[in-house]
Amino acid sequence: MSFREHLQQVVKNVDGAVACALMGVDGIEVDSEVQEQVGLDLQTLLVEYSTLFRAAREAAEAHEAGGVTELSVQSERLLVVARLVSPEYFMVVALKPDGNFGKARFMLRVTAPKLLAEL
Amino acid sequence: MSFREHLQQVVKNVDGAVACALMGVDGIEVDSEVQEQVGLDLQTLLVEYSTLFRAAREAAEAHEAGGVTELSVQSERLLVVARLVSPEYFMVVALKPDGNFGKARFMLRVTAPKLLAEL
Repeated sequence: MSFREHLQQVVKNVDGAVACALMGVDGIEVDSEVQEQVGLDLQTLLVEYSTLFRAAREAAEAHEAGGVTELSVQSERLLVVARLVSPEYFMVVALKPDGNFGKARFMLRVTAPKLLAEL
Repeated sequence: MSFREHLQQVVKNVDGAVACALMGVDGIEVDSEVQEQVGLDLQTLLVEYSTLFRAAREAAEAHEAGGVTELSVQSERLLVVARLVSPEYFMVVALKPDGNFGKARFMLRVTAPKLLAEL
């Protein structure tokens, strides 16, 4: 399966998911599947959230909490869950606020190794 | 109930929870309950994570995703879940990596309004 097909599988299998992307930790998108526009500039937001991922990683490592494997941000109009795929890449799923958070985490957990195998 | 008693309730009711704190968004702790030392400087880490909360808020608001209500960071040795209590304060629970994430989110959701009532 291509990157895109894996991302499509995540969006398809998570209730409320609107998009899924594979991104570099530097904020540069590798590939993405956007199923539904939600009236905001999702890609720019994800670039900003990648800054959060880097900041969380630096803070956790500096304070001996180990490497960051997952980050989530719930806001009024969007829930974003990101999971590390490799030291350089993470995948992220964006959901409507009432989307299935648990299923999103599960799908990221099972899909990340599949993406890693193709990186 | 005092702030501390509410925080104790959260730690007591969430499997794997090691600490719960009420913090200013500026990173200054109001009160905390630490049940178990986990071999890292939790309070300093939480101060750094409060920076993440502010950064997530700025990014979400700038990109029309609305106010941030919850943030979580999973790292190899610690899972931290934070929830906004008021525009100036958030509460945070720290868990062992295999702690009950869902219960932590639930307890934060039901406890935040109780803390807000006493702020």
